[in-house]
Amino acid sequence: MDYPKILEEIKESLALEPKTGTVASYIPELAKISPNKFGMHLCCFEQGNFAFGDSRERFSIQSVSKVFSLTLAIQLLGNKVLERVGIEPSGDPFNSLILLENENGIPRNPLINSGALVIADILVEHLERPKEDFLNFVRKISGQSDIQFNKQVAQSEKDWGYRNAALVNLMKSFGNINGDIEEVLDFYFHQCALEMSCEELANTFMLYANHGKIFGTEEEILNTSQTKRLNAVMLACGFYDEAGEFSFKVGLPGKSGVGGGIAAIHPGNFSVAVWSPQLNEKGNSALGMLALELLTTKTGLSIF
Amino acid sequence: MDYPKILEEIKESLALEPKTGTVASYIPELAKISPNKFGMHLCCFEQGNFAFGDSRERFSIQSVSKVFSLTLAIQLLGNKVLERVGIEPSGDPFNSLILLENENGIPRNPLINSGALVIADILVEHLERPKEDFLNFVRKISGQSDIQFNKQVAQSEKDWGYRNAALVNLMKSFGNINGDIEEVLDFYFHQCALEMSCEELANTFMLYANHGKIFGTEEEILNTSQTKRLNAVMLACGFYDEAGEFSFKVGLPGKSGVGGGIAAIHPGNFSVAVWSPQLNEKGNSALGMLALELLTTKTGLSIF
Amino acid sequence: MDYPKILEEIKESLALEPKTGTVASYIPELAKISPNKFGMHLCCFEQGNFAFGDSRERFSIQSVSKVFSLTLAIQLLGNKVLERVGIEPSGDPFNSLILLENENGIPRNPLINSGALVIADILVEHLERPKEDFLNFVRKISGQSDIQFNKQVAQSEKDWGYRNAALVNLMKSFGNINGDIEEVLDFYFHQCALEMSCEELANTFMLYANHGKIFGTEEEILNTSQTKRLNAVMLACGFYDEAGEFSFKVGLPGKSGVGGGIAAIHPGNFSVAVWSPQLNEKGNSALGMLALELLTTKTGLSIF
Amino acid sequence: MDYPKILEEIKESLALEPKTGTVASYIPELAKISPNKFGMHLCCFEQGNFAFGDSRERFSIQSVSKVFSLTLAIQLLGNKVLERVGIEPSGDPFNSLILLENENGIPRNPLINSGALVIADILVEHLERPKEDFLNFVRKISGQSDIQFNKQVAQSEKDWGYRNAALVNLMKSFGNINGDIEEVLDFYFHQCALEMSCEELANTFMLYANHGKIFGTEEEILNTSQTKRLNAVMLACGFYDEAGEFSFKVGLPGKSGVGGGIAAIHPGNFSVAVWSPQLNEKGNSALGMLALELLTTKTGLSIF
Repeated sequence: MDYPKILEEIKESLALEPKTGTVASYIPELAKISPNKFGMHLCCFEQGNFAFGDSRERFSIQSVSKVFSLTLAIQLLGNKVLERVGIEPSGDPFNSLILLENENGIPRNPLINSGALVIADILVEHLERPKEDFLNFVRKISGQSDIQFNKQVAQSEKDWGYRNAALVNLMKSFGNINGDIEEVLDFYFHQCALEMSCEELANTFMLYANHGKIFGTEEEILNTSQTKRLNAVMLACGFYDEAGEFSFKVGLPGKSGVGGGIAAIHPGNFSVAVWSPQLNEKGNSALGMLALELLTTKTGLSIF
Repeated sequence: MDYPKILEEIKESLALEPKTGTVASYIPELAKISPNKFGMHLCCFEQGNFAFGDSRERFSIQSVSKVFSLTLAIQLLGNKVLERVGIEPSGDPFNSLILLENENGIPRNPLINSGALVIADILVEHLERPKEDFLNFVRKISGQSDIQFNKQVAQSEKDWGYRNAALVNLMKSFGNINGDIEEVLDFYFHQCALEMSCEELANTFMLYANHGKIFGTEEEILNTSQTKRLNAVMLACGFYDEAGEFSFKVGLPGKSGVGGGIAAIHPGNFSVAVWSPQLNEKGNSALGMLALELLTTKTGLSIF
Repeated sequence: MDYPKILEEIKESLALEPKTGTVASYIPELAKISPNKFGMHLCCFEQGNFAFGDSRERFSIQSVSKVFSLTLAIQLLGNKVLERVGIEPSGDPFNSLILLENENGIPRNPLINSGALVIADILVEHLERPKEDFLNFVRKISGQSDIQFNKQVAQSEKDWGYRNAALVNLMKSFGNINGDIEEVLDFYFHQCALEMSCEELANTFMLYANHGKIFGTEEEILNTSQTKRLNAVMLACGFYDEAGEFSFKVGLPGKSGVGGGIAAIHPGNFSVAVWSPQLNEKGNSALGMLALELLTTKTGLSIF
Repeated sequence: MDYPKILEEIKESLALEPKTGTVASYIPELAKISPNKFGMHLCCFEQGNFAFGDSRERFSIQSVSKVFSLTLAIQLLGNKVLERVGIEPSGDPFNSLILLENENGIPRNPLINSGALVIADILVEHLERPKEDFLNFVRKISGQSDIQFNKQVAQSEKDWGYRNAALVNLMKSFGNINGDIEEVLDFYFHQCALEMSCEELANTFMLYANHGKIFGTEEEILNTSQTKRLNAVMLACGFYDEAGEFSFKVGLPGKSGVGGGIAAIHPGNFSVAVWSPQLNEKGNSALGMLALELLTTKTGLSIF
């Protein structure tokens, strides 16, 4: 596969695209990012790494972090995680309270906000020093010991986090949050405020393309079966109410964040991360979606 | 892969399972089927065919037929089909009117009842002799020239088809049905009344594992890209509001029907069909789901 | 009370109002009506009748007829009517299917479309010649032997009645329609196609201000308790999802129709009917609502 | 009207009723109340006061207090209150978040929890010492200078108030809460923890039967128009999703609370309060509803 040529073509195609999306502005820290940032990093089992643009600049990974917290929760509790959160696509916007109310406080899946808050609650309950331990876990699976929470972003999320506070209070009223509400929210806002580059995200996501083992060290984080299932959840639920569209056009398990990042994998073949802060109306990176669609079209590599 | 051994093990495991589901009884013709029927047929590219039980007995394929009507619609109209139906999982029971009402009569996807009715409307509009032409299409892709509609089942579906009539009338009120309501329903009820065996279903579904070409003749029905996308839709939407669960546990694109049949594929590897009429509370074959879960666990072959 | 002066003031106030609403256009027959028609007729127990404008011109009373069909159903079956229809305000648009689906096919109340279709089903079941008998009932309580269905309107309603067909099919699927769907719809479309003038409506509605007795002949149609309850249902449910607004601003039990008519009563004091075809965004006559608000403000007569 | 005899009959009827409801138990303080408490107090313009049972024992008035906070908000801001809260019945349980989400954080009406929280926010914003000033207002309109908040109940509401916290956070996310969330909730929980007897409630509610003037002193709290409108809101929205039922069977504006109290009025005639802690499945006092139904049946006095 001539990856250098394919990435060059993708870069050229995207340069011609009109910029139509809008940068997330619900907190000032995200609104400050230049809308023109664009980076892409591809990590292949056989042929190594390929990248272009701002692929080494760290950005706020936001909801992409939900994959990491879910990974850690599965490592700690296995299938017991599923007693408190479903695995069905939501068919509703990412922060909907409606489904929660109709389903007795059990979130539809762990990759929407409510589900990620339950995962946060699990981690707060089972980790000794939740934020530090989680950060160390991400440092381990990424191989980057200097990954950090952006404290300002975390604070800003908290200052404007009324909807997440509504979600966690509602679930607490149904008995599906065990911990202290403030502590769970604090953990969640920090988790979302992780900063990583495309290169780091792609390297970390190799874990999910590599049957649950860290690429390079081959240390097992999840077993094969757990990894497959997590990939299935990413495919079905990783893109809010655009999951079907992404699966249809791209055909890879992945996860997006409102910071404009997307990471995705093809089991046994590659992992990939893109970053472009302009979001489409569903809250996913517009150019990022397109870049990945071009990638699977040009390589012919989707899981279907 | 030792498929004979794997199928033998599946057969033995299922024999030990308690029978807990209920046979579909909304029409008398389905209620008459023996709950103990069970058949399975696996069709591999490399190693040929393997089967056990009632794998050659024809049964009412019901919603599995939605894959065939969608295939024909895509063949006729390509992506234009998507102007009238979405591709997102529904997160709601298969015959829900709620989503239709909230989304101006555009069904969430073509594999729920409302979506399949829109596809039926498209076929009624574009085929000269809709029922005959569709039947001939299924005969061609299956290679079985004696496949038939069960007229009694079609009539019974019609006699009890008030909810489908509600769906089609509601969509007509939004302008998303062009044809005559009675004709669209008549086509749809016939389509669902197709009878095929596990062997025939598995052979036909090889089309979707074979990049859109009929297995054997290699005649192209869909192109590679169309086939991938249809597989993505099956994975996301093929099991009503249990699609996430199926994707999670089985990890294959597929489609179920209330007659107790399920067909699924692994691109480039195999197709498989199972039949057991006892349904779980979501309307999918209980043992069928389990058989496919065992198959992907034992073979290690899921798409993730 | 100086009613002539009050009506004169209302007439003058309305003449100064900007005309902002839109005439119902879902069927051609209604769209043809001049938007400038306006009539008002007040019928008092003590002081007799007062009117102005087009108060003697007949128009399509549409949903106002639901009060008459409900009256007849209560006369025939008493409280048994309530086994098949609720009495709670709907909080949703008049033709919503959502509530029906969530409540097993039991309409929220008898004055929304679904509820009126259940009442139509009851009348079709219990009347020998449903349409004729219902027409004769309306002729009796109005004292007008020449009241007619407009056959063209009824036909047009039928030609465009997909949403009502959806409602009745959905309820049939839940077992809450006993009769033949076509017959129920035919009855309903005729009922809605009744033509009456403001004068005739006001005279007929005196029944509800007069404890259930026809004003003049004093023949009892409903008993006192039944009449009170029907008035309570009109107040809570007579104006679709604007019932609270009407109750708040006008404070009288009443019923509106998309033909632009509204009839209302003050028990023991008066009945009133207005007609202006321009509807607000909730489907109620804009000027009609205002006229009644002025009436209760100027007379000080609301039920609160 | 022979009120003593009527009340005696009601008392006897209720004694024969099976006790089927359940005492509110979501906070320990309410669960401790004897389920057999029953009191009734009727206050007539012409004939004075009549009572029986535990009519002088104070209990937690809970949501009945929403009428008093709304009264004070209207006194302070007039119709501007309606810019932030609707006046339509909700058709959903009293603490539903669904409607809020669909309507951009504007509660359906001021008598459901979300609406009362907006009213609380208004009072927190406009009163100098919110809790003290509100308490003094209730003392003034009741003529009882020793009315108190039950601090333990307020604290307990707070300890278990996750759903109310979810509501207020959700509305804050839509910009419909101006104040500090903790302060608004603290005010609301205190307001709900007011303790009054049937006698005191009936005397206070005379205000709403008396065109907005305190009965006795004739001091105007609301004007006639405001009072009528508030009464209309009570009729439409005072009993959660049983408002239609109450209006149908009782036919009086009123308000219930989960402490088992109900207060209601007939404009120009009487006010009445009942207390029985056993609630029906809608959260309204079962015997209280029945007592009021008997009262309007026996007196023939409903507003319809």
